[in-house]
Amino acid sequence: MELTGRSFIGRQRGAGESAAFYGINPLTGARLEPGYAEAGDDEIERAVQLAAQAAAPFAAASGKQRAALLRRIAANLDAVAEPLVERAHAESGLSLQRLQGETARITGQLRLFASILEDGSWVRARIDTALPDRKPMPRPALRSLLRPLGPVVVFGASNFPLAFSTAGGDTAAALAAGCPVIFKAHPAHPATGEIVAVAIQQAIAAEQLPEGVFSLLYGLGNKLGLTLVLHPAVQAVAFTGSQRGGRALMDLAASRPQPIPCFTEMSSVNPLFVLPELLAADPEGFAQNLFASFTLGSGQFCTKPGLIFWTKMTGAEAFVAHLKKLVANAAPLPLLTPGIAQAYTQLTGERAKQAARVAEAKNSGEAPFCHAAPHLYSTTLADFQARPALAEEIFGPTTLLIECPDLASYVRAAGALDGQLTATLFGTEADLAAQRELIDVLATKAGRVIANAFPTGVEVSHAMVHGGPYPAASDARFTSVGTRAIDRFVRPVCYQSLPDALLPAELQDANPLGILRLVDGKETRAAIG
Amino acid sequence: MELTGRSFIGRQRGAGESAAFYGINPLTGARLEPGYAEAGDDEIERAVQLAAQAAAPFAAASGKQRAALLRRIAANLDAVAEPLVERAHAESGLSLQRLQGETARITGQLRLFASILEDGSWVRARIDTALPDRKPMPRPALRSLLRPLGPVVVFGASNFPLAFSTAGGDTAAALAAGCPVIFKAHPAHPATGEIVAVAIQQAIAAEQLPEGVFSLLYGLGNKLGLTLVLHPAVQAVAFTGSQRGGRALMDLAASRPQPIPCFTEMSSVNPLFVLPELLAADPEGFAQNLFASFTLGSGQFCTKPGLIFWTKMTGAEAFVAHLKKLVANAAPLPLLTPGIAQAYTQLTGERAKQAARVAEAKNSGEAPFCHAAPHLYSTTLADFQARPALAEEIFGPTTLLIECPDLASYVRAAGALDGQLTATLFGTEADLAAQRELIDVLATKAGRVIANAFPTGVEVSHAMVHGGPYPAASDARFTSVGTRAIDRFVRPVCYQSLPDALLPAELQDANPLGILRLVDGKETRAAIG
Repeated sequence: MELTGRSFIGRQRGAGESAAFYGINPLTGARLEPGYAEAGDDEIERAVQLAAQAAAPFAAASGKQRAALLRRIAANLDAVAEPLVERAHAESGLSLQRLQGETARITGQLRLFASILEDGSWVRARIDTALPDRKPMPRPALRSLLRPLGPVVVFGASNFPLAFSTAGGDTAAALAAGCPVIFKAHPAHPATGEIVAVAIQQAIAAEQLPEGVFSLLYGLGNKLGLTLVLHPAVQAVAFTGSQRGGRALMDLAASRPQPIPCFTEMSSVNPLFVLPELLAADPEGFAQNLFASFTLGSGQFCTKPGLIFWTKMTGAEAFVAHLKKLVANAAPLPLLTPGIAQAYTQLTGERAKQAARVAEAKNSGEAPFCHAAPHLYSTTLADFQARPALAEEIFGPTTLLIECPDLASYVRAAGALDGQLTATLFGTEADLAAQRELIDVLATKAGRVIANAFPTGVEVSHAMVHGGPYPAASDARFTSVGTRAIDRFVRPVCYQSLPDALLPAELQDANPLGILRLVDGKETRAAIG
Repeated sequence: MELTGRSFIGRQRGAGESAAFYGINPLTGARLEPGYAEAGDDEIERAVQLAAQAAAPFAAASGKQRAALLRRIAANLDAVAEPLVERAHAESGLSLQRLQGETARITGQLRLFASILEDGSWVRARIDTALPDRKPMPRPALRSLLRPLGPVVVFGASNFPLAFSTAGGDTAAALAAGCPVIFKAHPAHPATGEIVAVAIQQAIAAEQLPEGVFSLLYGLGNKLGLTLVLHPAVQAVAFTGSQRGGRALMDLAASRPQPIPCFTEMSSVNPLFVLPELLAADPEGFAQNLFASFTLGSGQFCTKPGLIFWTKMTGAEAFVAHLKKLVANAAPLPLLTPGIAQAYTQLTGERAKQAARVAEAKNSGEAPFCHAAPHLYSTTLADFQARPALAEEIFGPTTLLIECPDLASYVRAAGALDGQLTATLFGTEADLAAQRELIDVLATKAGRVIANAFPTGVEVSHAMVHGGPYPAASDARFTSVGTRAIDRFVRPVCYQSLPDALLPAELQDANPLGILRLVDGKETRAAIG
C-alpha cells in the first residue's frame, strides 16, 4: 500500500503540495516518509458537509447493515495487520507484541459492537400501548428508542496508536450508533492513521454506504480541532488526551450557540490502597507486580497506578525496599514522543521539589533519545494533601508512595481525591471485608473499583466502565470503552400514535427484529397484539 | 396546616424575620399571606452540606426503601390534596380541575418511579464473568450498574405549580435515582411549595432517611440559584423555564472547576404540519381542536403548538377562516403572573411588526388584570425563514400560521427548524405514508413526533420523551418526563474482581433482587453459577 500523506475527505484524498509534518521514530529520531499535508479550510468544510449529508442515510441503515460495516472494517484491518503493526511500531516505538494486541483489540471491539447491532436490543425500545378507555383521559400509544445524534468529531490519542485512535473505541462506538465520524488524526502516528483510514473507507464503499460516514483530517496545532468542534453541523465530540486539551474542548463545545456533548477522557492518577494481610504474605512479589504495572507501556497508560497509599504494617518495609531496588536497577524506557519525554523530565523535576525521590534508575541522566528512566517518589499523607501538584498525572514510568498514619486514614484520603478512572484495593478477603466504607467512597470517586488486580488492563466488554468523575472524564455518566460507550452518541426519540408501518422496525407491533423491548413496563421479545 | 413562609433546611425551618415577597393571586391581584423570607447564605450552605452528608446513606438505601419514600410522599400529598389545590389555584389562577389533574399526575409519577425501584432492573446491571483460561490474557470478572450522582439542585417552574415544581418530575426522578434534592422554590407559588415540602419532609422522617435528602429554599433574584449551581458539593442541576434562564444555568454549570450536568428544559414552538386529506375532511373541526390546544392553560404549556405549517389545499380556506373566527370571539384568558402578562403584550406587539395579526379577541385592549387576549398571526414560509424572531416562543394564547408554497416544501421547512420538544403531523394514513421523509427529518428535530394529536398532553410513562435538541433542552440525550428521566442523575460504576459479598446486591451472583441483568451479553433474571 502506497502512503500519500493526504487527508481523507470521504473517499476523496486531500490536496496540498506541502508536507507540513512527518512521523518520527522515537527510538531513533529518524524522520519517516511520507510527509503529511494539513487539511485546508475547504477540505475541513467538505468533510463536515459530507458527514452531515451522510447522517440521515446512515441513521436509516439497519443495525445489520451497520454491523456488516464494522465487521468489514475489522476484516480489512486483519488483512493489513502486518504492515499496520510495523508502521505503528516505527511511529510509536511501542513493541510489536503490544501493537499486535492493540490490533486484536480494535478488531475485537468492532465485532463486539457488530454483535450488539445484530441483536438490536441496544436501542432500548419502549412501548406504552394505547389505553383508549382510560379515565379521565385516554393514553395515546407512545413508543421510543435511541437514535443517532449526527456527525461526531473524534480526536485520536497518541498513547494507543491503534486502540484509542483511528478505528479505536470512540470511532467504533460512534459508527455503531449510526453517527458519521470526522477523525482528527494524531500527528504522532500519521501513517498508521492512513492505513486504518484506507481500511475504513474501503469497507464503506464495499457496503455501499455514503462516503461521508468517515473522513480523516491531518493538522498540526489547534486550528483543525477548533474548526471542527465549533462547526454547526457537528453534534458531538470524543477526545482522549490531556486535561488541559480536554478542558479546552469542553469549554469550546459548551460555548457554541448550540452546546454539544463533549466526551473527554483526560487524566487519572489511579489510587491504589495496600491492605495489611496481603502485604504481609508476599511483600516482594507485590512490589514486583506493582513495578511491572507502573512501567507497563513505559507508564503511558491513563490507568497507570500513580498513587500508592500504604501504612506501616508487616511487610511494608520489605515492600518499599524491594520497590526501590527494582526502580534503581531498571533500564530507561522508550517514550512515545519527544514531547512526552520532555514533559517527563520537567514534571519529575518539579515532583522532586515536593516529594522525596527515593529511587531512580541507574544512569538516569544518560537515557537515550526519547527514553525515560523510572523514578520512585515518596511522601506522607499530610504532605500529599497539602500539595495539590502531587495529585497530578505524570505520563511515564513513575509513581508516588503515600505513607498514611494508619489504615483508618485511608477513607479520609480517598474522600479528598479528585475523580479517577480507576481505584484499586489490594487485600485478602478479610482485608477487603474490613474496608466496606473505603469501597463505597472509592465508588463515588472512580469509574471502576478493582480488587487485587492492576488497573492498566481495560477490558472491552459489556460491563466495562472507562470513565469517571471530572477530571478523569468530562462526564461521569458515560464510558469510552465497552459496549456502554454507544450511549454517548444517541438520544431517545418518542413516536406518538404513528401508523405501525411508519414506525422504525424496532417499534413495530410485530417486533420484526425480535429485540428485547419494555412493553407497558415489562421486558419482552414478544410481538404486540 | 400553618404556613410559616420559611425555607426548609432539611427538617429545620429557616430563620429570617423579614417577608421578602408574597404570593399574588393573578385573578385578583391580591397579596397572599404569609410573606416569604429569602434563605440566607448560611442557610443555603447548611442545606447543601446536609445534602452532601445525606448522599452516601441515601445512595446506599435499597430500591425498596427509596420506593417506600416515594409512595409515602404520594400518600402525604393525597392527604393534603384539597388545601394544596386551593392554594395552588389562589397562587396561579389555574383552574381547580387542572390542579387536581396535576396533583394526580405528581402522585402517579412518584408511584411509577416507586414501581421501577421495586423491580430494580432500572440500574442496568451488567456482568461479564471471569474467563481465567482465556488466551492470551484471562478476563477478570467485571460487573457494573448505575449509581446516583449526588446532590441535585432543582428549579421549580411557574407554569405547572405542581407537575413541574416541588414534587414534580425532576424531584421525583432525582430522589428515585438516590440523589438528595435541594429545591429552589418558584416565587410565583411559594405556599404551594411549602405545603408540598412539608409532605416530603414528613415522609423522609417517617422512613427514617437523612433529613438532607430534601431541602427547599426561597429566594428572589438570581443569587440563590447562582450560589447553588456553583457549590462544589452540587453534582447536577435540573431546570424548567426560559431559554435565557436555562442557558445562563448551562453556562454557569459548564464554567465550574468541575463542570456538572445541567438539564434545562427551555423553549419550544412545537411545529405542526397540516396534511391535505385530513384537512379536506373536516376543516372546521380541525380549527376548533387547534384553537382548544393553543389556548389550553391559556397557552402556557411548553408543548403549545406555536407554528402551524399549511398550504393551499381543499379545506384550507375554511380552516383559516374558522380559526380566525374562534380567536376573534374568544374571551381574554388568565395568565400565571403579571410578568408573563407583560411579556405577552410586549412580544405579541413585536410579532405584529413581523407577521400579520389576522385575528385578535374582542376587547383585546381591555383585558382584565393579568389576562391575555388570544391572538392569531400569519406569515409565509419565505418570510418566516427570513425573520428568525418569528421562530421564538411566546408564552400565552397565540400561534402563528405559516403558509407554505406546496406540500413538498414541508421537508425544507422542517429541516431549517431549531430543536423542539415536539413535532406534529395531522393527516390520514395515506397523508402520513406520503411523508416518510418529513417524519425522518422531524425525528432529528424533536424529542417526540406525534401523529393526529395535539402535543400539549405529556404522558408520564416509560416511553415518553420530553426533551429534544437544543434549544428545546440543554441535552437531547435525556428526557425530563417519564421513567427514562432517572437516567439524568446516575453514572455507571464498574466493580472488578470484588468478593461477591462486597458487591451491591444487584451484582451479586445469586441475584438476590431478581432483577434483569445482562450476563455475558445475554439478558436474564437468573442467578449465576
